[in-house]
Amino acid sequence: MEARMTGRDGGADIGPIGNSPVVILVRPQMAENIGTTARAMANGGLFHMRIVAPRDGWPQERAWRAASGADRILDAAEVFETVDDAIADLHHVYATCPRPRHIVKPLLTARGGAIELREATSRGLKVGLMFGPERAGLDNEDMARADALIRYPLNPAFMSLNLAQAVMIMAYEWWLTEDNTPPRELMTNGTHVATKGELENFMGHLIRELDDCGFLRNEQKRPGMVRNMRHFFTRGEVTEQELRTLHGVVTELVNRRRVR
Amino acid sequence: MEARMTGRDGGADIGPIGNSPVVILVRPQMAENIGTTARAMANGGLFHMRIVAPRDGWPQERAWRAASGADRILDAAEVFETVDDAIADLHHVYATCPRPRHIVKPLLTARGGAIELREATSRGLKVGLMFGPERAGLDNEDMARADALIRYPLNPAFMSLNLAQAVMIMAYEWWLTEDNTPPRELMTNGTHVATKGELENFMGHLIRELDDCGFLRNEQKRPGMVRNMRHFFTRGEVTEQELRTLHGVVTELVNRRRVR
Repeated sequence: MEARMTGRDGGADIGPIGNSPVVILVRPQMAENIGTTARAMANGGLFHMRIVAPRDGWPQERAWRAASGADRILDAAEVFETVDDAIADLHHVYATCPRPRHIVKPLLTARGGAIELREATSRGLKVGLMFGPERAGLDNEDMARADALIRYPLNPAFMSLNLAQAVMIMAYEWWLTEDNTPPRELMTNGTHVATKGELENFMGHLIRELDDCGFLRNEQKRPGMVRNMRHFFTRGEVTEQELRTLHGVVTELVNRRRVR
Repeated sequence: MEARMTGRDGGADIGPIGNSPVVILVRPQMAENIGTTARAMANGGLFHMRIVAPRDGWPQERAWRAASGADRILDAAEVFETVDDAIADLHHVYATCPRPRHIVKPLLTARGGAIELREATSRGLKVGLMFGPERAGLDNEDMARADALIRYPLNPAFMSLNLAQAVMIMAYEWWLTEDNTPPRELMTNGTHVATKGELENFMGHLIRELDDCGFLRNEQKRPGMVRNMRHFFTRGEVTEQELRTLHGVVTELVNRRRVR
């Protein structure tokens, strides 16, 4: 049984905590941003928040109001006076850094960073992700304490990123490191993708009726027209249920014609 | 010369527009969210916004205030009464859909969707991405008009996603489809990674001084101690500049000892 995230008030949990990276907000300014950051963390399965020297003190009711239910993360957030205190028990710390810096440091993409954090975590190491204050970002002293910097590949002509957005991207990438969802699948919802036999059964029905009504009367064009319809009906997957509907459509159109 | 995003007021541009996907906000409720969405779009290089039946009408000053400089996207936003009107000139439309639906439809991840949108765009097709209203999301009629649904892999125990956050993830994935940043690199900032010769030169200096001061006097342990130091100095990349600093550190420590 994994530990799960539950709060002081015993509300619904928001998932298994595990050994996920600690999100360290360094000198954050707006309590709302701390709340929306908690929400983004919950979205991506990051449950541990540490706050270094929040400008307006802590706790702040406005943070909880902005968290949209990610209260448990705020309830459990730890406050520190300095970055050194906040990272003392961590083995690796990565710092997000939107702007280029003139320092010698490994520089990772968000994805590269998330993968390395996952690897370190699976070795049993405690890792942290530092985010700077809203306007200025992390300062040079903060960054000298980080093992590596993370810079997101984003539009260089518009890099202004909200704190919660910045955390969202790392939370999302963190979640993806253990996700195996196929990039494309067909939801078939109780029916199934038609077999070639089921499709051919429908094509036979359609072609018989089109022969019957005279649509395919030009003998020279007939093979090409039939082939083109086959191309259309094989372009995307069709379900058995949809074929039954199409059988009905053909039948009803024919009946209406016969009645007329 | 590519077309660039410039606004009515002729301010600074925020990048080349290109044939990027149209973001279609369907019945959005809060003008602030339209503004923060524009900001997220600019971050990821999505420049075309369409708004279907905004609850509070359009334009709304609050949207511009929340856009943090992504005004050009709001200035150029087009408003439509219906989804059909908003998508009439598009070739492919994908709908984001946080919750499972009982429909037969291709289902993509954010990454899978971004890659397909990029492929379609590079074939010259106009594509769109639909996002539903803040609380309810897209309805069944909206989704019946989409070629595919996109659902983000995120913490199923906490799926509550702000509109701008949802757009941010697609904008980020869109940007990544053309990004080639290496996942890890070393910023060396004017210096260079030390060659093995430069490193060995330093190791020689260090070992000579350690021999001199007696630290390596145990002949039996000496080879292992030297090897361990080599392991340490080869674990991460070291720059030529850092080696010069380390030479200085060794020299100064030795001088201090000699003075004493």
